[in-house]
Amino acid sequence: MAASGLVFPGTASGSVEYCPPCTHQVPLPPARPFLQTLRANVKETFFPDDPFRHFRGRSASRRFLLALQYVLPVLQWAPTYSLGFLKADLLAGVTIASLAIPQGISYAKLAGLPPILGLYSSFVPPLVYAVLGSSRDLAVGTVAVGSLLMGSMLGKAVSPLHDPVLYLHLAFTTTFFAGVLQASLGILRLGFVVDFLSHATIVGFMGGSATVVCLQQLKGILGLHHFTTDTDLVSVMKSVFSQTHQWRWESVVLGVGFLIFLLFTRFLSKRRPKFFWISAMAPLTCIILGSLLAYSTHAENHGVDVVSPPIGKLKKGLNPPSSSSLEGTAVARSFATLKNYHIDGNKEMVAFGMMNIAGSLTSCYLTAGPFSRTAVNYNAGCKTAVSNMVMAVAVMFTLLFLTPLFHYTPLVVLSSIIISAMIGLIDYAAAIHLWKVDKLDFCVCMGAYLGVVFVNVETGLLISVGVSILRVLLFVGRPRTVVLGNIPNSTIYRRMDHYSDAQPISGVLILRVEAPIYFANTSYLRERLFRWMDEMEEEPSSKDRKSLQYVILDMGAVGGIDTSGISMLEELKKTTERKGIQLLLANPGSEVMKKLSQAKVMESIGWQWIFLTVDEAVTACNFALHVVCKAPTPDIAGKITSGHSNV
Amino acid sequence: MAASGLVFPGTASGSVEYCPPCTHQVPLPPARPFLQTLRANVKETFFPDDPFRHFRGRSASRRFLLALQYVLPVLQWAPTYSLGFLKADLLAGVTIASLAIPQGISYAKLAGLPPILGLYSSFVPPLVYAVLGSSRDLAVGTVAVGSLLMGSMLGKAVSPLHDPVLYLHLAFTTTFFAGVLQASLGILRLGFVVDFLSHATIVGFMGGSATVVCLQQLKGILGLHHFTTDTDLVSVMKSVFSQTHQWRWESVVLGVGFLIFLLFTRFLSKRRPKFFWISAMAPLTCIILGSLLAYSTHAENHGVDVVSPPIGKLKKGLNPPSSSSLEGTAVARSFATLKNYHIDGNKEMVAFGMMNIAGSLTSCYLTAGPFSRTAVNYNAGCKTAVSNMVMAVAVMFTLLFLTPLFHYTPLVVLSSIIISAMIGLIDYAAAIHLWKVDKLDFCVCMGAYLGVVFVNVETGLLISVGVSILRVLLFVGRPRTVVLGNIPNSTIYRRMDHYSDAQPISGVLILRVEAPIYFANTSYLRERLFRWMDEMEEEPSSKDRKSLQYVILDMGAVGGIDTSGISMLEELKKTTERKGIQLLLANPGSEVMKKLSQAKVMESIGWQWIFLTVDEAVTACNFALHVVCKAPTPDIAGKITSGHSNV
Repeated sequence: MAASGLVFPGTASGSVEYCPPCTHQVPLPPARPFLQTLRANVKETFFPDDPFRHFRGRSASRRFLLALQYVLPVLQWAPTYSLGFLKADLLAGVTIASLAIPQGISYAKLAGLPPILGLYSSFVPPLVYAVLGSSRDLAVGTVAVGSLLMGSMLGKAVSPLHDPVLYLHLAFTTTFFAGVLQASLGILRLGFVVDFLSHATIVGFMGGSATVVCLQQLKGILGLHHFTTDTDLVSVMKSVFSQTHQWRWESVVLGVGFLIFLLFTRFLSKRRPKFFWISAMAPLTCIILGSLLAYSTHAENHGVDVVSPPIGKLKKGLNPPSSSSLEGTAVARSFATLKNYHIDGNKEMVAFGMMNIAGSLTSCYLTAGPFSRTAVNYNAGCKTAVSNMVMAVAVMFTLLFLTPLFHYTPLVVLSSIIISAMIGLIDYAAAIHLWKVDKLDFCVCMGAYLGVVFVNVETGLLISVGVSILRVLLFVGRPRTVVLGNIPNSTIYRRMDHYSDAQPISGVLILRVEAPIYFANTSYLRERLFRWMDEMEEEPSSKDRKSLQYVILDMGAVGGIDTSGISMLEELKKTTERKGIQLLLANPGSEVMKKLSQAKVMESIGWQWIFLTVDEAVTACNFALHVVCKAPTPDIAGKITSGHSNV
Repeated sequence: MAASGLVFPGTASGSVEYCPPCTHQVPLPPARPFLQTLRANVKETFFPDDPFRHFRGRSASRRFLLALQYVLPVLQWAPTYSLGFLKADLLAGVTIASLAIPQGISYAKLAGLPPILGLYSSFVPPLVYAVLGSSRDLAVGTVAVGSLLMGSMLGKAVSPLHDPVLYLHLAFTTTFFAGVLQASLGILRLGFVVDFLSHATIVGFMGGSATVVCLQQLKGILGLHHFTTDTDLVSVMKSVFSQTHQWRWESVVLGVGFLIFLLFTRFLSKRRPKFFWISAMAPLTCIILGSLLAYSTHAENHGVDVVSPPIGKLKKGLNPPSSSSLEGTAVARSFATLKNYHIDGNKEMVAFGMMNIAGSLTSCYLTAGPFSRTAVNYNAGCKTAVSNMVMAVAVMFTLLFLTPLFHYTPLVVLSSIIISAMIGLIDYAAAIHLWKVDKLDFCVCMGAYLGVVFVNVETGLLISVGVSILRVLLFVGRPRTVVLGNIPNSTIYRRMDHYSDAQPISGVLILRVEAPIYFANTSYLRERLFRWMDEMEEEPSSKDRKSLQYVILDMGAVGGIDTSGISMLEELKKTTERKGIQLLLANPGSEVMKKLSQAKVMESIGWQWIFLTVDEAVTACNFALHVVCKAPTPDIAGKITSGHSNV
């Protein structure tokens, strides 16, 4: 097709020959062999962080050292460890130990396990993490939500009261398999499945879990002996208000008193970050005070139950998948951002997995990196994972010498500690922020929250993940199409409903599609594009308005196309042709161009109708509408034929 | 923040005051109340085709008439029906009747139903469709894939040989509920669920189903009496080759003979479209010839089974959801495109639904709009749905007077008719095209094909829908990020790996994100964007190359953002700041801007770092890198403060 033979439709004289102003060439992207593309795609999917880039161009011995350091991050910081670091880590370690001991005992109760398991779990796993983990700030230990999940899941199968040995073995098995799952997700580089839990999901899920945990503590605070095993709001409220005659005022007074003390210290620390140690020490203080009080007043005779019976040595043995472990990676990453170093999510998953596998073999249950304790560790000025080791040693001393003390700890104190820790997780401010910024994210969040509070944890997670995925599918299924107009005195074209000064071009409709053209949206796009054209044609035409003669599709935001999308474009081309409207494409992306040219759609639309920018497309239209030019310059002919030669 | 106080980092003098060249203002999109946005979104999701737009601005009586025409499309064309139309429709109706009779009998056999049901199903449903359907070309009747699906699904529950009455009732119930499902999808405007079957899925699924149907015909062709009820390749091949001694040569000769005749007529019609009637008449010719042959030679005594026993009158009664019905809408739409009129998918679903409900009450089974028959109808020159009525009348005559003839129809002829119709559905050319254009679509297609052929229809559908949805999630989960460069002598910036002449800007990294920033990709994007920066900084710097000081994010292709994405941008801003790199945003979309400003990210990045185009952002960077200018002109100060005043 020679340049001089091209004919524009709809001009006054019936047809004009093509002679556009100088436009830029739209070349085909360079061809890449299929295998190379496949390899690049697999790499981007599974190794987006390119973990091995430091290995490139190094000698064999250096590579070996780097590989060793990659597997055992301890080797990265151990050689340069200094006395100054040790001092900082000692302080941080003791601080987090004082938090780990009461929290360990409390959370173990939450999981329906003997309290001493909470202490065991703050001993071995932190040592494993110190060797394998790459975060310098993460404090390892049991987590409330994980404990709750485990308790509610295992409680369905076995009662911790009637068959404590079986329950314990089940707990170790659960921890073991959770570890295996984590490690294999990490090794298989599938850590990205965690990405499908959005920020909104996590806010709702954590808030819901915290609410449920607080509700469960009503048992301890009110001094009740019988309580529902269900976690939902309705069951708990029924259980609480069906036995009002069993409420013990001594327990309530003690519980509320400690709770007010704990919340006050938290408030103080929040106001003045340098007093972080006050809130860090408060739970241990409560435990000691509460135990002394119970010991001196024989509180167990006054309706205040103490830990007493279930503490003791436990046999070793083997140890359910859990989602709370996912939290740890995110926590490690957010603190890494604060200190400006890099965390490999998949590597952390492996470290957590190994930690839980080792833990399950040494009488520990599910551990991760709880946010609150990590924040204390960070504020206490930790430098390396040595703070975890210090904590482990401190917990070991507690185990060896201080366990008898915990015989007298009132259960109500543990409940107060749990509630004060959990209240911080109910992030209503974040929920309000979600409502303001993104209504759909707010729905996701409330779906998770209400699902967890009114049904159970699994339902809450399912609802929120479902809504999140539906959102992605809706984005692709119902893409935005917008009409563009010219910003006066520029070559820029923008949305007319956003930029109020953008001007329409007479006789030309410029449409922008803001999503990939996939099977899920081809029917919709077809309907929508035709509706835009119909609406444009139906508009009352003023005297200097021409009827619609050109439709320019701005493909700049079309990130991909599949065969259904290609068929749709072909059909669009045919239909517009039948209506006497010329279809132009502006700024098609590389992937889209490649596929369109393979499917020969570029040829069917015509290379001369493909433009680099909307402005150049509009210029070509205006040129054809207004100017009649018989002799194309050699330069233009060259542009057109060179477009062809790229096919 | 006054314009004169703004400071650019990283310039030779340490800091320069801001005085950019004239840039365009980036206003906030006009605010819309929440309810209005919600209403618009719901409308786009469920009413993308805006079916009621013709009602706007009309008088009440005119609206009533339009509503009546909307519900009963027959009223649109009936008043202007002419004798010329009738002549065309008569010819087309008789032509499709000659196809409907043999296909009806054959497909009923495929569904395990008495052949006469195939004829019944070409009588009532077309009459219903003629009144309610909006397609002028669609020929209604039973479809092979639907019949196969029904046969294999019902066959699992009840044997058509041992309990024919129950089987029949089950078939009617299935048809009834398929109708109810279709009608309710249409009424609830949920027709878009059909969109999630991509072109590739349909090619694979249809090809697989056609293969399975052909395999089933080996029973008829080989004259076997015992045959597996499973549809997968392995079971069928076992069944065929375990009884080679039962093969009847008479049956094989007759079957292959008729098959060659049918394929030859098809080939002829394809070569010369005006001989379409040859292939349209061929199946009926086969039936008549075969029946006469069987009658005259008493073929049933020579190993050639005839239809004989199951034909007869059937009692009326009530009539499982099916996916083949989905085909009809697509068929109607593609022919509507050819004739340039509009088909409302949801309305068609309602018409199909009513047709099947009515059918199930009048001894008909599942009907839809088969492609082959519709194509014949179109080629025969049909004008309106009257051709369906003519077909119905022709079938009625057949039912009244010609049924005895079909007693002698050899089953092998029906098998030949089915095979010849099915072979056309195995669209290997489309599969090759998919491989060339889109490897992933090819996988989807082959997944569907192999699933159907080796396991069953449901598995095939599940595999392909699963892969298709995974593709959409992967597109969002692993968005492309590309580095842009300047096209020489222009203000255009394009991908440097595509446009070989695009030039990088010294000290400035221009990144383009080609997907919405959602929870599913925030972790990936964070990793990837930092990797781009690291790679840029690690590059061996030539003497005139500056170190990285500016990162411009081209947001033009970012169609949406959620709260996880907003957090990621905030984090990116903080990290780049710590590295001494300034972050700039170019061309943010309306939805993205709205959310970023609600979340106060616009303020944290600074309104002066938001630009309308990449070129303006680059100009501002270059200006700060090269030019020192102390006194900003009033015009520029006005630009910056007016940006603020829009908050």
